[in-house]
Amino acid sequence: MATSGSVPITPALKDELDIVIPTIRNLDFLEMWRPFFQPYHLIIVQDGDPTRTIKVPEGFDYELYNRNDINRILGPKASCISFKDSACRCFGYMVSKKKYIYTIDDDCFVAKDPSGKEINALEQHIKNLLCPSTPFFFNTLYDPYREGADFVRGYPFSLREGAKTAVSHGLWLNIPDYDAPTQMVKPLERNTRYVDAVMTVPKGTLFPMCGMNLAFDRELIGPAMYFGLMGDGQPIGRYDDMWAGWCMKVICDHLGLGVKTGLPYIWHSKASNPFVNLKKEYNGIFWQEEIIPFFQAATLSKDHDTVQKCYIELAKQVKEKLGKIDGYFVKLADAMVTWIEAWDEQNPSSASATTATNGPAKK
Amino acid sequence: MATSGSVPITPALKDELDIVIPTIRNLDFLEMWRPFFQPYHLIIVQDGDPTRTIKVPEGFDYELYNRNDINRILGPKASCISFKDSACRCFGYMVSKKKYIYTIDDDCFVAKDPSGKEINALEQHIKNLLCPSTPFFFNTLYDPYREGADFVRGYPFSLREGAKTAVSHGLWLNIPDYDAPTQMVKPLERNTRYVDAVMTVPKGTLFPMCGMNLAFDRELIGPAMYFGLMGDGQPIGRYDDMWAGWCMKVICDHLGLGVKTGLPYIWHSKASNPFVNLKKEYNGIFWQEEIIPFFQAATLSKDHDTVQKCYIELAKQVKEKLGKIDGYFVKLADAMVTWIEAWDEQNPSSASATTATNGPAKK
Repeated sequence: MATSGSVPITPALKDELDIVIPTIRNLDFLEMWRPFFQPYHLIIVQDGDPTRTIKVPEGFDYELYNRNDINRILGPKASCISFKDSACRCFGYMVSKKKYIYTIDDDCFVAKDPSGKEINALEQHIKNLLCPSTPFFFNTLYDPYREGADFVRGYPFSLREGAKTAVSHGLWLNIPDYDAPTQMVKPLERNTRYVDAVMTVPKGTLFPMCGMNLAFDRELIGPAMYFGLMGDGQPIGRYDDMWAGWCMKVICDHLGLGVKTGLPYIWHSKASNPFVNLKKEYNGIFWQEEIIPFFQAATLSKDHDTVQKCYIELAKQVKEKLGKIDGYFVKLADAMVTWIEAWDEQNPSSASATTATNGPAKK
Repeated sequence: MATSGSVPITPALKDELDIVIPTIRNLDFLEMWRPFFQPYHLIIVQDGDPTRTIKVPEGFDYELYNRNDINRILGPKASCISFKDSACRCFGYMVSKKKYIYTIDDDCFVAKDPSGKEINALEQHIKNLLCPSTPFFFNTLYDPYREGADFVRGYPFSLREGAKTAVSHGLWLNIPDYDAPTQMVKPLERNTRYVDAVMTVPKGTLFPMCGMNLAFDRELIGPAMYFGLMGDGQPIGRYDDMWAGWCMKVICDHLGLGVKTGLPYIWHSKASNPFVNLKKEYNGIFWQEEIIPFFQAATLSKDHDTVQKCYIELAKQVKEKLGKIDGYFVKLADAMVTWIEAWDEQNPSSASATTATNGPAKK
């Protein structure tokens, strides 16, 4: 197969990707990323007090939006962007004009592979996004497009072209992405296992998408990457990326797009406070028991042939079916619609253009 | 979570597992496995000329069955056991009286992990089988029961008990398990990537199960592990394990059982002849394009509450739907029924006892 080992990071590609960073503090962490990030444009979404100044190390090309900017640009539709929660990062996805987005948390540093070499996370994400996915059948040797690997015996030849990759979900060494109860039970657990694999999350399977180290193709799936209503004034936090992941996966499955997880790793430096996290999470921990069966059963029709149409339909189903759990979901469903309206305003050319083909293995 | 790192290989467990080896030659390869296999009982299924003597290294506890034995034991039902094809190994599964089976090809040797340590493949398979699987939701840090890992944020708590593990599918370093066309295109490709992961193949997802390095719980799934009609007098070969894998996975999904793939690796020493393989495979390569959609769409009902009942129902659907492709599938469907009859004769206590509970996430 065409190998992904040699994907060149061309200057053209550098013009096709924005790095989105939500933050409330000075971005000293960028120093460590300088060799990898400096060629790219950064979109910094400042959360919290807009009068505070965020220092960005010299030499980076960036634009910065604080809450006043968000309110000014979106007007009343700014209500769909969370405040005092890193969910605000999705504003950056909306105002980007690039094909690809990479988003990273400001407590994530460069990890090393087992040979001690610093990992260029962004380069691996780009490889993941430029190579097809294999959502319709499982390959036991992991990514078949990778150098030294291929499709194994018994893999149907008709499926070896794969599907376009919409999302690349990277992992974390050191502090794993645990919920508050697990953090409390295992305060000393560190992820030291470097698993040298990239794999496709199969069609029909949901997974917990973490926003810490995440890349996606904005043209293919951007409007589904809404991080919901979290933080200030909301009964829930730390489910922003999960929400986006569930919606995104249902839509990717419907449109025949692929989602990968695995490499690259970043080094997650510091566990957030589990007591604070528990307060943010407890409703989510409770609600997810109903949310996940909802998304597992959600269906879209042939008419839902753009990401936007799929997303509006999901919002409708969220209101109807999850609205019964709590009024929050009615508000969230409205915000999902507002998000799409705002997206289309900011991206007029994509409003009706985002059409994907259905995959071969649809039931 | 309970970690699997410390599963002890107790003498009791040694009495609960048989190693099944199909072969046509002297079993010199066992010398390398002696430290790991010698405590276990071997079931050797001799293929081809029954008058030939197979030498087994001293000190191993084994029983050996040749074609004459198979014919004598099964009588007319011996027609369901393939001849001149390693598919004959499933006879060993049937006559075993143990809870667990490990089956390995006689060209597979002990592999080394990246630290240079020899891998005790059997020990890892036992760990895999004794720990639950997670078929209902994907965990991004792979096996959550493994030491140093857990369920990540966003994984529903109600699903953290997992499901009973029925099958552990191990992988291969050196010669990868490629089909003939891929072998021909990439004669020099070797698998050198050690991926330090065990993962559950999600519910609803099919995969290519290879019989080279495979363990399973005979009590949970044994009757589904039929390797079909291959080899002498049949229009197809090298699809025995694939066939078993597809049937097994559909039944595991229905009964709420789990299937793992990943560790352990064995060292696969020698690629089989791609020209010979192509001759065996070409019908399968063609037919699998229809077989896989068939299995993806196959449904079982609530009444199919034992592996045997599921399997008989699948045989019926194979005859109805795949019989149209080629008369071979009518013959295969009949052999599937014969297999279950023979299984129940050899295992009278399991004939009606193999009941599993349905999983929580059934659609």
